[in-house]
Order: sequence, then structure tokens, then C-alpha cells
Amino acid sequence: MLVEFGNTRVLCAASVQDSVPRWRRGSGQGWVTAEYAMLPRATNTRNDRESVRGKIGGRTHEISRLIGRSLRACVDYKALGENSILLDCDVLDADGGTRTAAITGAYVALADAIAWMRERRMCPGEPLIGSVAAVSVGVVGSVPMLDLCYTEDVAAETDMNVVMTGEGSFVEVQGTAEGAPFDRAALDQLLDLAVGGCEELTLIQQEALGS
Amino acid sequence: MLVEFGNTRVLCAASVQDSVPRWRRGSGQGWVTAEYAMLPRATNTRNDRESVRGKIGGRTHEISRLIGRSLRACVDYKALGENSILLDCDVLDADGGTRTAAITGAYVALADAIAWMRERRMCPGEPLIGSVAAVSVGVVGSVPMLDLCYTEDVAAETDMNVVMTGEGSFVEVQGTAEGAPFDRAALDQLLDLAVGGCEELTLIQQEALGS
Amino acid sequence: MLVEFGNTRVLCAASVQDSVPRWRRGSGQGWVTAEYAMLPRATNTRNDRESVRGKIGGRTHEISRLIGRSLRACVDYKALGENSILLDCDVLDADGGTRTAAITGAYVALADAIAWMRERRMCPGEPLIGSVAAVSVGVVGSVPMLDLCYTEDVAAETDMNVVMTGEGSFVEVQGTAEGAPFDRAALDQLLDLAVGGCEELTLIQQEALGS
Amino acid sequence: MLVEFGNTRVLCAASVQDSVPRWRRGSGQGWVTAEYAMLPRATNTRNDRESVRGKIGGRTHEISRLIGRSLRACVDYKALGENSILLDCDVLDADGGTRTAAITGAYVALADAIAWMRERRMCPGEPLIGSVAAVSVGVVGSVPMLDLCYTEDVAAETDMNVVMTGEGSFVEVQGTAEGAPFDRAALDQLLDLAVGGCEELTLIQQEALGS
Amino acid sequence: MLVEFGNTRVLCAASVQDSVPRWRRGSGQGWVTAEYAMLPRATNTRNDRESVRGKIGGRTHEISRLIGRSLRACVDYKALGENSILLDCDVLDADGGTRTAAITGAYVALADAIAWMRERRMCPGEPLIGSVAAVSVGVVGSVPMLDLCYTEDVAAETDMNVVMTGEGSFVEVQGTAEGAPFDRAALDQLLDLAVGGCEELTLIQQEALGS
Amino acid sequence: MLVEFGNTRVLCAASVQDSVPRWRRGSGQGWVTAEYAMLPRATNTRNDRESVRGKIGGRTHEISRLIGRSLRACVDYKALGENSILLDCDVLDADGGTRTAAITGAYVALADAIAWMRERRMCPGEPLIGSVAAVSVGVVGSVPMLDLCYTEDVAAETDMNVVMTGEGSFVEVQGTAEGAPFDRAALDQLLDLAVGGCEELTLIQQEALGS
Repeated sequence: MLVEFGNTRVLCAASVQDSVPRWRRGSGQGWVTAEYAMLPRATNTRNDRESVRGKIGGRTHEISRLIGRSLRACVDYKALGENSILLDCDVLDADGGTRTAAITGAYVALADAIAWMRERRMCPGEPLIGSVAAVSVGVVGSVPMLDLCYTEDVAAETDMNVVMTGEGSFVEVQGTAEGAPFDRAALDQLLDLAVGGCEELTLIQQEALGS
Repeated sequence: MLVEFGNTRVLCAASVQDSVPRWRRGSGQGWVTAEYAMLPRATNTRNDRESVRGKIGGRTHEISRLIGRSLRACVDYKALGENSILLDCDVLDADGGTRTAAITGAYVALADAIAWMRERRMCPGEPLIGSVAAVSVGVVGSVPMLDLCYTEDVAAETDMNVVMTGEGSFVEVQGTAEGAPFDRAALDQLLDLAVGGCEELTLIQQEALGS
Repeated sequence: MLVEFGNTRVLCAASVQDSVPRWRRGSGQGWVTAEYAMLPRATNTRNDRESVRGKIGGRTHEISRLIGRSLRACVDYKALGENSILLDCDVLDADGGTRTAAITGAYVALADAIAWMRERRMCPGEPLIGSVAAVSVGVVGSVPMLDLCYTEDVAAETDMNVVMTGEGSFVEVQGTAEGAPFDRAALDQLLDLAVGGCEELTLIQQEALGS
Repeated sequence: MLVEFGNTRVLCAASVQDSVPRWRRGSGQGWVTAEYAMLPRATNTRNDRESVRGKIGGRTHEISRLIGRSLRACVDYKALGENSILLDCDVLDADGGTRTAAITGAYVALADAIAWMRERRMCPGEPLIGSVAAVSVGVVGSVPMLDLCYTEDVAAETDMNVVMTGEGSFVEVQGTAEGAPFDRAALDQLLDLAVGGCEELTLIQQEALGS
Repeated sequence: MLVEFGNTRVLCAASVQDSVPRWRRGSGQGWVTAEYAMLPRATNTRNDRESVRGKIGGRTHEISRLIGRSLRACVDYKALGENSILLDCDVLDADGGTRTAAITGAYVALADAIAWMRERRMCPGEPLIGSVAAVSVGVVGSVPMLDLCYTEDVAAETDMNVVMTGEGSFVEVQGTAEGAPFDRAALDQLLDLAVGGCEELTLIQQEALGS
Repeated sequence: MLVEFGNTRVLCAASVQDSVPRWRRGSGQGWVTAEYAMLPRATNTRNDRESVRGKIGGRTHEISRLIGRSLRACVDYKALGENSILLDCDVLDADGGTRTAAITGAYVALADAIAWMRERRMCPGEPLIGSVAAVSVGVVGSVPMLDLCYTEDVAAETDMNVVMTGEGSFVEVQGTAEGAPFDRAALDQLLDLAVGGCEELTLIQQEALGS
């Protein structure tokens, strides 16, 4: 499925495998993981391909790990059985917030994949125990803002990615002072904004899944 | 630009650089090159990412080289000046004929990029000296066919990729006996089919470029 | 310098170079970066060397980037001039909280290196504009705790790394729900704990630097 | 065995293994593959070793794949049983036509290896169902020529590699317009030349194999 | 355990595994191997990490192999059973003689590990059949010297590493003329010095092992 | 040039470059280095290519370094000027003693290359200040032997490679106890044998060079 947030477009796809990584075998439990990548022309100036450079950059690794961790928060491994779901998030166009768009879109791909598995009776139980959505918030020119686009992102003094469940709990909070360090009041304001943003996305996800 | 041939979809983009590879510096001549890649979920069963495996496979290398070579056939290096054009061809969905679709689409991206350079007076002359299009033809069940889709491709006894100029000359002819070796008559039939296919594509390219 | 927090021991060293990465040249500004690594026997069960595996893992990348970003928060690039400081953080023994110990120790190494540069009049101004310290906090068995050791870390439902300046502002907040997602109240409790912990570390850093 | 064509010298060796690649196991069928490489001093100016550069170049990959594909055209996988034959083609001296010399020589090594296996009753049937030879042809100064040496190769406007069976069918036809695109008449002339060249080589191969 | 020779400090650790490399399986015999590495700041000017460069340098490989080979001289593989011992030697500070310090220290770590295995009845017999120690000797300004530090090492005309058993036999003799080639008399003098040095180290090892 | 010792055959070639590695620039001094490799079928059982594995093994590294170091012993860097000579030693057939055969043959290639440079007046002086040859000696069944072939090499209790100048001094002495450690008397016997062997090789080298 293709997620669009402003000019950011991310292709999210889930692949199901009826096996688990070696360290997980025999546990009766499943696994969920993710791979994030950007096409070379997703940004305004072309990026070299990581396959050509022969290694994956630190940023790519970090985001892939974040996506996987976030989605595992809404999965019951035992109910999944010894199956794996791999989420591919490929950014076609990048204009800020690619990692949060990827998480939000990957959730829909994950839910679809689990429904497909349930139809085929591949899982011993119901593996989907909730939903997950993510937003990026930031302070630009001392104004807290939701969903920064690329030019805002670069100008942001503070940048925060927040991943939440559909029920309003936090899965991941990552705030970084790009310019000046931020105080507790700014942190609180950003969290308020994020809570509102994630609620909206949860509704959109539910519509997309037709429930 | 996005090229679609049947269910095959390839994203083709051209990037212009005002420099050339080291071995070309000081020659007053430009260069054109290409990179081909497939998203992991372009095919029905997921392929591992080449960035994750840490190296580019032989097939990817071979196709990237073919695309670059084909497009260089319609470029005058001197008129291009010491500039490079890099063509990215990323397959979003693969259903046979991805390499020929990539060449045909990359030509349009190339022509666009050269027009953009000409507006900015970056080139000493007119670098575009013709057009290039490509088709795949094959023998399936002893019937010669144009534009094989994936299931036909797998079943083909002979598979041939033909790259031609808009004026009807050959740039590249690559025929492979997948099953039984083929005789001269079969080769001639396939070439006839290819000539017709490339003529059609040339018209479509001209429309896309609005000329 | 060797930092010890409980049984965690990290060797932190700063290396000064009178040049900057290519993208920074001619800007008149300096750069600070970090590399984090673990000796194979730092943990109870041996880890394979990343040099032997031929690539750096995602976790190592992520932590190296976090340390660099955190320390850049207390550096004025212009006052540093076109010099680079590279911080090496090598974990000799790991018993939880290695990344926060590395940041706290690297700050002392950084301050030492800057003092050494100032003596040699290598910098146009005073590059050190503050201090930085970090703690890990978490919820273990629903009790918020400071400075988790390895067994607590594994058992933690929520794990949070907080990097703060000596003046009490946040540089980085990274909270992850390992088990169940956490609510706003838990987040606030963890932040309170972290603030206290960083204040203590700031005092210890000042002592170590003899100021 | 050592093949010499003009000044080109290629060492071809076959290695037999009583197993097949993983994707082939349990099929009862064998596999044939090839690896091509050039010694650093095979050419006039030294080439860096691919082992030192840490990866195999696109050209090497492409040629290795071509050799493997060509030789598989004369092998019956079922009669081979679950055995693999790996053909190593190492170029000691390169003066044009190394890939076609490698194919022609590798066939002899392959036939020898199969005879050796037959003596040891390793194969359920007769795996060798024909012979394979290859030539390079080209247009130099508008004259079609057989077996280009290096200086001719560089000057060629069109370069074509043709792989044929001993019975005169085509296994692979790869024609590339290095300079100007070529027309159908030129293509036909080159194919005629190639047919004659391959016939001659087939006789030489039969002599070498003493049959 | 931490070995110090002058200003050289090497951390030596042994890791026991109840399995052997693939080529050794089913032989009933064990294996001993070693990995040597230097922290980036072990030397006065920082060395790049081999994990960052993505490959292990020739010198590192060579020393790792020397350490492994030396220690295998005092081990009875059959008495060890199908177990492996991996010795990690990480240089924290380098001031000459790191490889010989690593061998001498690794022996103590090995003996400790074997004692630990014997307590747990993991070995069918007594695998430790002797001891091993190593020194570096050299000719500096025509004077033969024991245990060169870094400045002497650089100035040495001849540099020799000698590994001996506790009983006074040679396991490895590696002499290199850095400057002028050396004659038989010089070689003999260096060997005499080495014999004395290894005897002393053997006593120190025995003390360290409390025997 | 092709060196043959028994069944061992090594192709040695020298390449001259009118530049030096970066760390050597501006010194007015030259450099000599070597690369050693084995063809996959040099041995009885095929070895995987290091280019395919993507990295050079420890053994290859070690031997390349030994060859370079040995040949530098007969070169005056200042008289060579800022030129480099790279020696390629490729083993076509391996039957023991490949590294010593490579050194002995590489010397002849080096002397040829220097003569070629002298003719072209590329060097400020006479860079060749002596000759270098190498032998392998060993103890097989308690009998010291010169020039072990492969089956003897495997059976050897002690294996020693000795590199000497034409004037009879030692450049490198590398003795390894493969089986039981060896005593001083055995070491002396092996050195005596090596001295005789190198003298013979020096004569053969002089003949080959026609002096």
C-alpha cells in the first residue's frame, strides 16, 4: 500500500513467511521485522544507492529498527505462531516525516497481512492486539508544530517522533534538540500535539482497513 | 517518470551532474550511465535487498550496464560537454520485460533532462542525436511473441531483447536459448517482430515528449 | 579516561584533528563525532567482532550517532574552528547503561581535549558552551528506577535514555516500551528521575575536571 | 587445459562436486556453472585484483554468467544426476575474444570432466548432449571480421559474440553497436561469418577430445 | 586478564564453546583459535577501526594466526574433546611487543579456561600439555636487546619474535631484517637472549596461575 | 616470467608506476610491494576465489606481505626515485613451497623491471643493491629436508621459510613447529640446509638474468 503525507510517499508491503529467525525456532512464537529504504531520487538531490556503496548507512539501520520495534508493540507473538512478517517501507518521495509515515502505513500492511493469514488459518490465535500510529512534531521558530515537511524539519530547533497505540499509550518517544536544548514545558507541549495527531491517524487507519 | 507495460511498472529518473567520472576529465566530453534495481516486493515472492546482502548481484549489474550502453547510443558526448546524466530505473512491479521497459522509459527521462539542460545553456551543442526503444520477444510453444509477461517469459524457449534507434537500426541484440537452441529462421522471425514493436514504442515516446 | 557505573566500564578517549570532513571544509566551523564499540568479552556471552563480520551492526551505528549528537549539543562549532574531535567509547565490561555511561564519560574526554587545544591556541574561541550527562531510567515491575543494570534492563517494561545539559535542559529523550506501552504519568515519573540523576552526574563530571 | 587464440590464453578447468546448490536439492538434477577472471597482468596495463577491491566487477559477473549459460545448453541435467560441474576460466593473456575463447575451451574441460565421471559411474545417464563453441565477430572500418584481436576490438563499430552448438543452432547471440547502430544487412553478414567460425572450432574441439 | 609489559597493556580473555568448526566435527578433537585487535587509541596517533573500514588488515590477520598457532602448541586436541577455546587479545595501550605480550597473556587465560572446563568435567583428558611464552628481541644500534619498546622497535635493524615452550623448545621463530640483513652470529645472539627472556616469563606465568 | 620448482608453478610479473603511495609522496623515495594469489585449481581440491568470497584470507595477506618485505631488502629507495614496483605472484600449480618460489621468481621479475627503468632513465641511481632468494626447509620424520613438496609439507613436524641475500645474509627466518616443538640443534641444521639451497638459487637467478 502507498501512504502519502503531504509530499511524502512511502510504499509499505508486508511479506509473510512460515518460519522464524534461528534464535526464535522452537519457541512457538512469531516475529515481526522491518526494512526501510529510500529510492535514490526520493530527495531533491540524488542519494547514492546503499547497494552500490555496499553497506547500509547508520540512519537506515536506525529507522528500520524503529519501525520493527514499533509494530511489534501491537502483536501477540504466541498468537502469531512460528511465522514471520517482514515489512518493507520504500520511500518514493521524501518531504519530511518519512519514518513516521512508514510506521503508520506499515501498520495497515501488517493488519492486512494478518487478516490474510487468519483466512488461511495460519495463526493459532488473534495476533493483532491493537494498532500503532506515529507522528513527528517539532519546534520551529519557537512554535510547536505537527507533521513537519522537509524545509520545516531542517529549520526545527527540536524534533520529536512519537509512536502511540490506538488506545493512547506511548510506544516510543524520541526527542532530539537539533539546535538549542529544550525544557520540560516544551517537551510537554510537543507530547500534547503528538497525542492529538496520533488519534487522527488511528481513525484514518481504521477507515483504510474498512472497520 | 513512471513507465507501465502490462503489469510491469518502472520508475525512471534522470539526474544531471556538472562533472564527469575521473577517467573522462579534461576530455570536453560527457557521460551517461544507469542504475537498475528492483524493490523487494516487485515480484510475487519477495527478493532480499541487495543493500542488505552487501553486494549487487550479477543480474542487476548486467542490466544496469545494458541500459547505460543503450542510451549512450543516442547521445553526442561532445555536444553534452563535461556533464554526466545518471538514469535510475527502479522496478516497482515486475511482470516480465523489466529491462526493456527500463530502457524505453529511461529514454524519455533522458530527453527531458537534456531539454532541461538546454534551457539552462549547460551544453555546448545538441546532445540528443536520436531516440532509443527496446522490446523483448520470445518463442513460447513454438509461437514467436512480442512483450512476454512473466509466466510467458518463464515458459519461453528462446528469449531475445532488442534495442533499436527511432530510425530503425539495431543498438543491441541479445538472444538466449533458454530451452532448445534456435535456428536462423526463428532468429529472423523474432527480429521482424522486434522491429515492429520498437516502431510502435518510438511513436509513444514521441507523444510522451510532446513532439 | 575510564568510566565505571556499577559493573559497566567504558574507555573514553578524544582524538583531535586539524581538519574537518569534506562537506564541512571552508565553513570555518568544526565537527564532533563519536564511535562506540564493545569488546567481544564485555558481555557474559561472547559477541562476534564487527571487524570479523565485516560490517557494523545497526545497534552500534545507532549508539555512535547518539553519542556524537549528544556531545555536539555543548560545542560551539565556530569557536572550535576547522578542527574535528573524534570520541572513541570502547566498552570493556557491559552491565546495562553502556550508552549513557559513554556519553557521560565522553563529555569529560571532550572537555579535556578542548582544554588541551586551548593551551595550544588551536581554537579561535571557547568551544565548550556547557556540559552534557546522560542516564538510563526504566520501569521494572511497575517501579520506576534509575541506572538499570543488565538483569534489570532485560526485565524492564519501559526503558528510557535521557541526555541533559548541566543547566537542566533536555538534549535527547528516548523512551521505548519494551513490554507494555506506557502512559503519560509513567513518562513524567521517569523524566523526574532522570533529571535528578543527570544533576548528580554533572557534579561528578565537574569534580573529575577539577573545576 | 590451456586455450590459445592468437595471443589470448585462457586456462580452463572443470571441478566436479557430488552435490548441487541448495535450490536444486532433491530434484535429481545436476547443475553447471562458471567463474571467469583475469590475472592482473593479462592486459598491457595492469588491472587491480577484484579480490583486493573486495568485489567482483559487472563485466566479470556478466561473462561468468554467459559462460555458464552457454555450457548448460549441451548438458542434460537429469542424466548428470545431483552433481555439479564448476568451470574456472582464468585469462593469463588477453588480446581480444577472451569470453568466446573461454566458452570454447570450457567445453573441452567439461567434456573431459563428464568422461571422468562416466568412468566412475557417477552419472545416471549420458549428460553430454552436444557441443558448444563461440566466436566474436565485428565490423572494423565497415569490413565484417572474424576473431578480433584487442586493437581491432577497440576499433570495432559493432561487436558480436555468437555461441553455437556443434549442430549449427544458436545458443546465444549478443551484438552491440559500439559506435554507430547497425542495420539488418550487417547483422546478417556477421551471423554468416560466425556460423563458419563456430564450425571450424567444433572440429578443433573434436580433435582435442580425440574423437 | 590484563597483561602489562612496560607501557604495553593487553586484555586477554578465553571463551569456551562446546562445539568445533565444521571441518573438525565428528573427529573427537577440539580446536584453539585467537583474535587480536587494537583499540583505536592504543597508539599515539589514532588508528581507524577495522570494523569501520569493513575489513581486517593484513597485520591483524597475521598476528591473530600467530597467536592461535602458538597456543595450539601446548594443547592436546583429543584430551580437549570436541570443544573450542577462542582467545581474544585486545590491545589497550601499545608500546612495542604487543604480539608477544598477547601470546604470553593468552596462555594464562587458556590455562584458566582449561582448569574451569576440568572442574565441569567437560574434557575427556588433560588438554594442557605444557606452557608457552613469547618475547621480542632485536638489534638496535648493533646492540642485541630484549623486549623492545615502540621507539626501539622502530629503530631496530632486526626484529625477532620467538615463541617457546616452558621446557625450552621453539614453537615459532620469526626474524625480519628491517634495515640491513643480519648474519648467522647476530641470529645466534638474538636466540640466546630470547631463550633467557622466555624462561623468566614462564616463571611469572606459573606464579600468576598459582602453581 | 614463470617459475617452476618441482610441480609448483608461479607466474611472477612486475608492474612499474611513476608514482608512490600517498604516505610516501614528496619523500623522493620509491616503494616495492607484492600481491600473491592462487588460482582456484592450483591445488588438488578447488579453492573458492577470494574475489567471490569478497575478502582476502589471512594466509594470502601474510604471504603478500612477506614477499614485499623480502624484495624491499635488495632495493635502494632513493636510487629508485618516486616510482613504485608492484610484483604479482599468481600460483598456477601448487605443490608445496609456493611462497618461497614466488620470492625467488619475483626477484628476477624485479631485476628485469629495474633494468627496463634504467634504460628509460627513470631512476636517479641504481636501485638494485643485491639479490634475494628463498627456500623452504623442514623436518620430515626427524630428517631435515630442503624444498618440501605438498605431501612432505603436510607431514612436516617443523616448517621453515628462509629468505637470504645473494651475499649470504638473512632477510627473513620463519620457523614454525607444526607438530612437536623443535630444539636449537634442529634449528641449526635447518638453517645450514637453507643456506646451501639459497646459494644454488642465487646462481640460477644470475643465469636467468644473463649475468
